[in-house]
Amino acid sequence: MTTEPIHADTAGLLARARQDYQDLAGRGLSLDLTRGKPAPEQLDLSEDLLSLPGGRHTAADGTDVRNYGGLQGLPELREIFAGLLQVPAAQLLAAGNSSLELMHDCLVHALLSVMPGAKARWADEERIVFLCPVPGYDRHFALCERFGIEMVAVPMTADGPDMDTVERLAAEDPAVKGIWCVPKYSNPDGTCYSDATVARLAAMPTAAPDFRIFWDNAYAAHHLTDERVEIADLLGAAAEAGHPDRVFVFGSTSKMTAAGAGVAFFGSSPANVKWLLANNAKRSIGPDKVNQLRHVMFLRDAEGVRAHMERHRALLQPKFEAVARILQQELGGTGLAKWTSPKGGYFVTLEVPDGCAKEVVRRAAEAGIVLTPAGATHPYGKDPRDAVIRIAPSYPGLKELEQAIEGLAVCVRLVGYERQAA
Amino acid sequence: MTTEPIHADTAGLLARARQDYQDLAGRGLSLDLTRGKPAPEQLDLSEDLLSLPGGRHTAADGTDVRNYGGLQGLPELREIFAGLLQVPAAQLLAAGNSSLELMHDCLVHALLSVMPGAKARWADEERIVFLCPVPGYDRHFALCERFGIEMVAVPMTADGPDMDTVERLAAEDPAVKGIWCVPKYSNPDGTCYSDATVARLAAMPTAAPDFRIFWDNAYAAHHLTDERVEIADLLGAAAEAGHPDRVFVFGSTSKMTAAGAGVAFFGSSPANVKWLLANNAKRSIGPDKVNQLRHVMFLRDAEGVRAHMERHRALLQPKFEAVARILQQELGGTGLAKWTSPKGGYFVTLEVPDGCAKEVVRRAAEAGIVLTPAGATHPYGKDPRDAVIRIAPSYPGLKELEQAIEGLAVCVRLVGYERQAA
Repeated sequence: MTTEPIHADTAGLLARARQDYQDLAGRGLSLDLTRGKPAPEQLDLSEDLLSLPGGRHTAADGTDVRNYGGLQGLPELREIFAGLLQVPAAQLLAAGNSSLELMHDCLVHALLSVMPGAKARWADEERIVFLCPVPGYDRHFALCERFGIEMVAVPMTADGPDMDTVERLAAEDPAVKGIWCVPKYSNPDGTCYSDATVARLAAMPTAAPDFRIFWDNAYAAHHLTDERVEIADLLGAAAEAGHPDRVFVFGSTSKMTAAGAGVAFFGSSPANVKWLLANNAKRSIGPDKVNQLRHVMFLRDAEGVRAHMERHRALLQPKFEAVARILQQELGGTGLAKWTSPKGGYFVTLEVPDGCAKEVVRRAAEAGIVLTPAGATHPYGKDPRDAVIRIAPSYPGLKELEQAIEGLAVCVRLVGYERQAA
Repeated sequence: MTTEPIHADTAGLLARARQDYQDLAGRGLSLDLTRGKPAPEQLDLSEDLLSLPGGRHTAADGTDVRNYGGLQGLPELREIFAGLLQVPAAQLLAAGNSSLELMHDCLVHALLSVMPGAKARWADEERIVFLCPVPGYDRHFALCERFGIEMVAVPMTADGPDMDTVERLAAEDPAVKGIWCVPKYSNPDGTCYSDATVARLAAMPTAAPDFRIFWDNAYAAHHLTDERVEIADLLGAAAEAGHPDRVFVFGSTSKMTAAGAGVAFFGSSPANVKWLLANNAKRSIGPDKVNQLRHVMFLRDAEGVRAHMERHRALLQPKFEAVARILQQELGGTGLAKWTSPKGGYFVTLEVPDGCAKEVVRRAAEAGIVLTPAGATHPYGKDPRDAVIRIAPSYPGLKELEQAIEGLAVCVRLVGYERQAA
């Protein structure tokens, strides 16, 4: 985060911000920075996928991918993603088009059937609590709300969630059954979990014997710099620490190939994989293996994935650089904002003065710039400081993005100086 | 069903059956009649699907099908199937690759959130009971078992489930929350529900205000004769009878295009569709719209579906005719068996003398012919008469199928005459 001291001459600054906002509102913009969607140019990178598998319809082992069956997904696709997701291919499951579905279904199955290590179905427990590092991903929080799972916010640090707090809460309350983690290029603040954080998550004592870490490795290969951050292997570390069933790993190709037509993955211990497969077997006769073969033919191998993600980076990096450049230009030195410079992922987190985020988002919307609702990064949609705004730079074209960030900066100045003047 | 009088000269018949079985066992067969899977030749009918959508990636309304969103599915695909499934396109949902998933998820959402018309989540009810017309589909029954839903068997008649029994059970017990129906070319006995049955299902009083008919119209277009049976419109009839929310319609292209890579549909009242969409919105950012566009381009319109299903019929009809011919040839006049001659769907039901079905299946397996386990057509896998065997003729080649049915007939004679001689 870049921090700046508070500026003094508020009246003049406010007058200029008001003038700028009036100009902005008069431009009739219609821009959308709400969701982390790939841009059409990114989807074009996978154009070949749309004509595959062509004449072929057999998997490496001779399976006819067009027919029923193959509940765990194609082995050759699981091989490609095993290293990236840090899960042995035999413990990896290739499923449908959405990792969110897999997270949802893991919660459903935990609620309605007894998980390995559990004493009861979660539906029969009095309380279920999940720890929610904040800022975090609104769809994780929405799943908890939908199933009546209580959420307890845990602050993020530069190394991941504040582990003193996580360890204390997990150790003292058997109702604490899980934690949401986006361990690499976290949504929305871009944090990468340190090795120490991973080691502590793997080894910490938990009061609940069926505690689960929902390890949403959504941005495992989604680098924005040369650095290609690596995180430690939580699944392996948990097994070594004597907690083999603690970790559910999720991932997908949604932001690699087609956002709506990719393949999602689940990885865990043999016992958990067996549990999920047994539950899935009641639900489905198998995933879309044609789409899985399509992905095998298109991506080829782990190196193919890396090369493909470099092409995404070439499209995304200029957008993130534009965001940083404009925020610095328009808000640097104002003392009104801090923002992240992520090394990967899909988001920039903008922090405005306490009590200002909702108002900034409201003013931006009135000027035709739609942002993710303020508060969405927190459980129950409530950011206690009302300070965090999530920016999703991926979808708009570069020119539109620049307009939107310039406009957003105007709104931050307007609201920020109004508060200072009040 | 074809019935035959009991034959007298058992000793000689048994001796010949034993000899035939010995010959059969010596042939080292390895044949599988277990599941209703399309044959490779049927899947080849949709070969073009594997290169689609090719260069195109926009839906009729301009939506980029590659990206997130579009939770209800492509309108143009829903238009194609609206007539066939007897659901207005606006009340139809096009989803993933499996209608079984949709049935599973409807149960999950009913258990974990309050349905339209319900007073409580089903998970909070003391007992949930489903009526199960028998013989029926084992995967329906497996869903009930998985969720602890009690099953009560209701006998099938030539017009569908015995409606006197259905009406009585539904009217007297508020725990009775649903019924499984495969209304056209029923799995496994090929029954088509009469207009009177549909009218009674639509209008009957139910003690549960949240009673649901799970209307699994899996074989809506799967004709095996010129007759193309039509069934009455249950969803419309229920709405007219003042029970608009009573009906969940399911269907899919699994046995039209690719069994593992088709599109599944859900249709219901506006209130139920809204309820399911709201729950699905927490689970997914949208279905695989690329696969939906692929299906639109391949099937084109309702007439395209009909023409495509004629091509399936051309492959399937000879197999069903072979089953009927061989059963008549080998078992006609023996008094040992009755069998169905379905006008559509995927199965033939073979009825053997009481107490013989398990033994026939066991003997067949020993001779290398694998059948669906006896009892699978009944709740909890228990056919009280132990008389029903489901035959799935679709997958094997014609020659293999003939061998399998000939072998099965030998097993029926062996077991049947052994019982008579005992």
